[in-house]
Amino acid sequence: MQLKIALGQMEIVPGRPDLNSTTMLEMIGEARKQQADIIIFPEMSIPGYLLGDTWEQEAYLQDCEEFGRQIVQASGDITILFGNVAVDWHKRGDDSRVRKYNAFFIAQNGRLKGDDNFPYPYRIKTLQPNYREFDDDRHFYSLKKLAQELNRQPEDLLSPVFITIKGRRLGLGCLLCEDGWSDDYFTKPIPILGQKGDVHLFINISSSPFTLGKNNKRNRIFAKQAAEAGVPLIYVNNVGIQNNGKTIYTFDGSSTVYSKKGEVIYYSSKPFQASLDTLELDLETGGTDAAPAEICDDHTTGYIYQSLAYGLKKFTQAIGISKVVIGISGGIDSAVSAALYAGVMGPENLLLINMPSQFNSQTTRNLALELAKNLNCRYTVLPIQESVDYTTRQIQETPVIHPLTGEETRLKLSPFMIENIQARDRSSRILAAVAAAFGGGFTCNANKAETTVGYSTLYGDLSGFLAVLADLWKHQVYQLAHYLNSEVYDREVIPQGIIDIVPSAELSFDQAVDEGKGDPLVYPYHDYLFRSFVQWWNKATPEDILVWYKEGSLEEKLGCTPGLVKKHFPTAAAFIADLERWWRLYNGIGVAKRIQSPPILAVSRRAFGFDHREAQNGVYFTRKYLELKKQLLSE
Amino acid sequence: MQLKIALGQMEIVPGRPDLNSTTMLEMIGEARKQQADIIIFPEMSIPGYLLGDTWEQEAYLQDCEEFGRQIVQASGDITILFGNVAVDWHKRGDDSRVRKYNAFFIAQNGRLKGDDNFPYPYRIKTLQPNYREFDDDRHFYSLKKLAQELNRQPEDLLSPVFITIKGRRLGLGCLLCEDGWSDDYFTKPIPILGQKGDVHLFINISSSPFTLGKNNKRNRIFAKQAAEAGVPLIYVNNVGIQNNGKTIYTFDGSSTVYSKKGEVIYYSSKPFQASLDTLELDLETGGTDAAPAEICDDHTTGYIYQSLAYGLKKFTQAIGISKVVIGISGGIDSAVSAALYAGVMGPENLLLINMPSQFNSQTTRNLALELAKNLNCRYTVLPIQESVDYTTRQIQETPVIHPLTGEETRLKLSPFMIENIQARDRSSRILAAVAAAFGGGFTCNANKAETTVGYSTLYGDLSGFLAVLADLWKHQVYQLAHYLNSEVYDREVIPQGIIDIVPSAELSFDQAVDEGKGDPLVYPYHDYLFRSFVQWWNKATPEDILVWYKEGSLEEKLGCTPGLVKKHFPTAAAFIADLERWWRLYNGIGVAKRIQSPPILAVSRRAFGFDHREAQNGVYFTRKYLELKKQLLSE
Repeated sequence: MQLKIALGQMEIVPGRPDLNSTTMLEMIGEARKQQADIIIFPEMSIPGYLLGDTWEQEAYLQDCEEFGRQIVQASGDITILFGNVAVDWHKRGDDSRVRKYNAFFIAQNGRLKGDDNFPYPYRIKTLQPNYREFDDDRHFYSLKKLAQELNRQPEDLLSPVFITIKGRRLGLGCLLCEDGWSDDYFTKPIPILGQKGDVHLFINISSSPFTLGKNNKRNRIFAKQAAEAGVPLIYVNNVGIQNNGKTIYTFDGSSTVYSKKGEVIYYSSKPFQASLDTLELDLETGGTDAAPAEICDDHTTGYIYQSLAYGLKKFTQAIGISKVVIGISGGIDSAVSAALYAGVMGPENLLLINMPSQFNSQTTRNLALELAKNLNCRYTVLPIQESVDYTTRQIQETPVIHPLTGEETRLKLSPFMIENIQARDRSSRILAAVAAAFGGGFTCNANKAETTVGYSTLYGDLSGFLAVLADLWKHQVYQLAHYLNSEVYDREVIPQGIIDIVPSAELSFDQAVDEGKGDPLVYPYHDYLFRSFVQWWNKATPEDILVWYKEGSLEEKLGCTPGLVKKHFPTAAAFIADLERWWRLYNGIGVAKRIQSPPILAVSRRAFGFDHREAQNGVYFTRKYLELKKQLLSE
Repeated sequence: MQLKIALGQMEIVPGRPDLNSTTMLEMIGEARKQQADIIIFPEMSIPGYLLGDTWEQEAYLQDCEEFGRQIVQASGDITILFGNVAVDWHKRGDDSRVRKYNAFFIAQNGRLKGDDNFPYPYRIKTLQPNYREFDDDRHFYSLKKLAQELNRQPEDLLSPVFITIKGRRLGLGCLLCEDGWSDDYFTKPIPILGQKGDVHLFINISSSPFTLGKNNKRNRIFAKQAAEAGVPLIYVNNVGIQNNGKTIYTFDGSSTVYSKKGEVIYYSSKPFQASLDTLELDLETGGTDAAPAEICDDHTTGYIYQSLAYGLKKFTQAIGISKVVIGISGGIDSAVSAALYAGVMGPENLLLINMPSQFNSQTTRNLALELAKNLNCRYTVLPIQESVDYTTRQIQETPVIHPLTGEETRLKLSPFMIENIQARDRSSRILAAVAAAFGGGFTCNANKAETTVGYSTLYGDLSGFLAVLADLWKHQVYQLAHYLNSEVYDREVIPQGIIDIVPSAELSFDQAVDEGKGDPLVYPYHDYLFRSFVQWWNKATPEDILVWYKEGSLEEKLGCTPGLVKKHFPTAAAFIADLERWWRLYNGIGVAKRIQSPPILAVSRRAFGFDHREAQNGVYFTRKYLELKKQLLSE
């Protein structure tokens, strides 16, 4: 039997059930024209998924239910599968609020299916993720919890939904996102449903944020499970962006169909694009007549670029920003940022500003101007020296008075304090005001290495409406620079001089680029060290680093170039001093700065903010670390 | 039988197992001197509780285990009960990381007790909160989950730990914090353990953050459960502060003992103070010989003051800030902030700065000076007009150049943009630099009403190292002002003029205080409206507000003064315009600003940050709201 299936890879706008249901109704109309038997929409297609505590508004829940009823009514000759929040108004969640499920609805002939073998006329999520950016247990009651409440096992409740299409009775194995990623759970929905024997088709509806390398992993895991069950599996994911406040996620769609043999027989060719594709699935062979699908490797700089460009476009649209001001220093981060924004928003919507002080070299000033010309963006130079001098003078010359004694004292600013005055002068005095006058926002150009250790000034370079590069390590920023020149623009928009110059904040003569002086970070090493602190699934600490250093396996473990450590840190004492310096900053002022930093566009596993969560608890070294350090220093 | 019990109401320093175990060893020594039979420490007494993703560092877990072993070794004649993370290195959590339990350890004679009737030599938390600031399922595997994995029910696994003291076998019902708050869970640990019949004593170890009114509720719930089970219940909670980055919680201790009849027979007399109190408990009568305990009402301005003062002291100590700069405008928020800081840190460690522009009245300048004199703090005046004028000129007079055409244009700043320039000039240009020169931080004085709707300037008044008042509504700020004058200082340190003056940002002549002009917020109404959006357990939305407005019950529902609505909004159109204005700001720019706002000291249920979580998703009005609005406007 051939089933004609429409994959509703829609853009979900979080918090807008009105828009989402309109999109769905349009796609249903289109699928009906194409004579599809079934149309499948993603998880939480009506409410959106990442909503913060909007789930605590009962009026919002009722609204989503009402829009869900409209979708059900739109079914008839076409069977509609979609995700929505389901509310049991008679039961409570553990938080005493009304009970909510992350639910999978199947509608046919204007009615919901599936309550013949389940307590509700819908299916609910069995496995709820509570790691990274996910907080499912905060809001939703899982099938596992429901089973326990009913004094049963999850296996008892997991049952297919039976529908009849073209006179044939079909069992659908309904999965919600994480249900397919059961490796680390003792409840494994696909094998459990598969063993029940009457599932003809697995359908996984997801709202799965893009993360570098995730699709490759999904294809391995899902293909294996489809093959083991001997049942085809359809995965439908949304596009769009959703956020948790601090962390913004893109959704690439990448909807996929796996045959009963585990072959990828359909792969959405357009990541980050809404699409309604239909395919004929042969239920007997569990495959299609079409040629095997091509899978795009998602672990490339090109994919990072796509994700960033898409996220940038959608986020600026969502918050109503169409014009952007970028402070360009002549360095790599602001140059990549400018090239990225110019491509997405159009050079006519950018204003680039160079804000030199006495410490900025002619070299970087020229490079900044060259960049603006290459990108064809409007440009201005607003020097900060006069204002910085005024501030310095005003603070140092105004008396501080003791109200009782009348005693007068003066404040003194150190060179380091004046460095920070420069940074704040640029962002808070100039960029914020210019952005308002230009009718838009200004950008934060920080990368992930700087952000990790707070190598930035609060209310200075660590400000702006979005930190588009803050989930990229410095080496990824360089890769993106090359990609922008060679693939996106096909010409050297980012001058080679900017790529070649030593990275420097140019806040003092100690950071003079023309003398080859720059940042205290050795990016080819620190990028990888910091990655092990932040991004590894089991986070590394100085204890682990020192163990590996001692046994000579550090560079291999971290994945950086061999020989680097010895070159930069000839002695154990130098190595340890460097390690402790950055560990202190990462756990100390770095956390304080990140609490007030702009939202970050996520690319990797563990973006700062809501994926990597942290407390301002200060620095800690384990006992074993301290022992190892003692040993190494006495050797 | 008389048991001598020591309540180890210790200060837990999160992330510092070394310090915490030292504190515990000292208290154990002290309890031993007092010949206590048992000493009880709080939940997670070794690692701390709010650690962010530090739980993902295996080295940290091993370290906590090792410190736990030291505590076990310190037992002997004294039985030690304490909380720690327990790791099962052979099993995985749902996130594939090593499995962690939030565990309750009982040590006697150098050995752990309790593995005779349980899979582990410790007990684990049954009920894990995943609401407000809590993320328990993110890190820990609950007893409920373990039961399901073992194909059993939680009831089967819940069992007392049996110990022998003075030759008598005692059954201890071990509870971890939320286990005592089982109202909304279908598994109720106290009744389940109670019905098993061999529990002589319930012990609830907690790490329960202070929230206004929580102790009163706990006393009701815990007393009832102790009485129903007919078993005494001991509650031990820690003091100190812990944070989730954006939100800082104080812990008030308030350890309590409930008799078998549900009477409060011991109540820690010193909230927010570490203490080791011992009491004799008669196991037969389930009571003590002592007089009934006095409970301090925790729903008062005095308790808010205690919490804020304690939080402020501990937080500044933790991050190493001993000197503070406060911008004082002559308004109420900065005055309360200054009085609070002066009391906690000492007036000699404060520097108060008035930063007038042309819009600041002589009235508020005088009030600011009067405040500084009253508090005996050093004081300076740093005017901003010159700098604001310079910035305005520089931005408007510097040409913006098109790099290809050479076309020159000029930017134009509106009066509103210049208002924001003033706010940023004060904070980012002056306060940040002065704070550095003074050797400390500067404060954010925002209240919760402003913070809700973003009535503040990013990098301006919405900056600083801590927002100490940002979980207080405006009326609570006034209550605190009175409390500071009458109870803390016992004289008018905050001049009556500051209390009487109309609240105003004084950023334009439209906000001239001497003409009675000020903020667009009608605090006696908006405080309560916003509270319903943010703080209610089931969050209100414009739909709910309009329903109540229509039926005439709004003021009663919100809890504000009757007659206010009619007075300020004579027509439905005016009422709706106001409602929509603030709802838009709350969901729009307000969220964007809060993402970058300073950490907040939490007082209420639902502080912004990690308790009230939010996405930058923009504004939504439900269908029902739009219908109601249409009705009301056509009437």
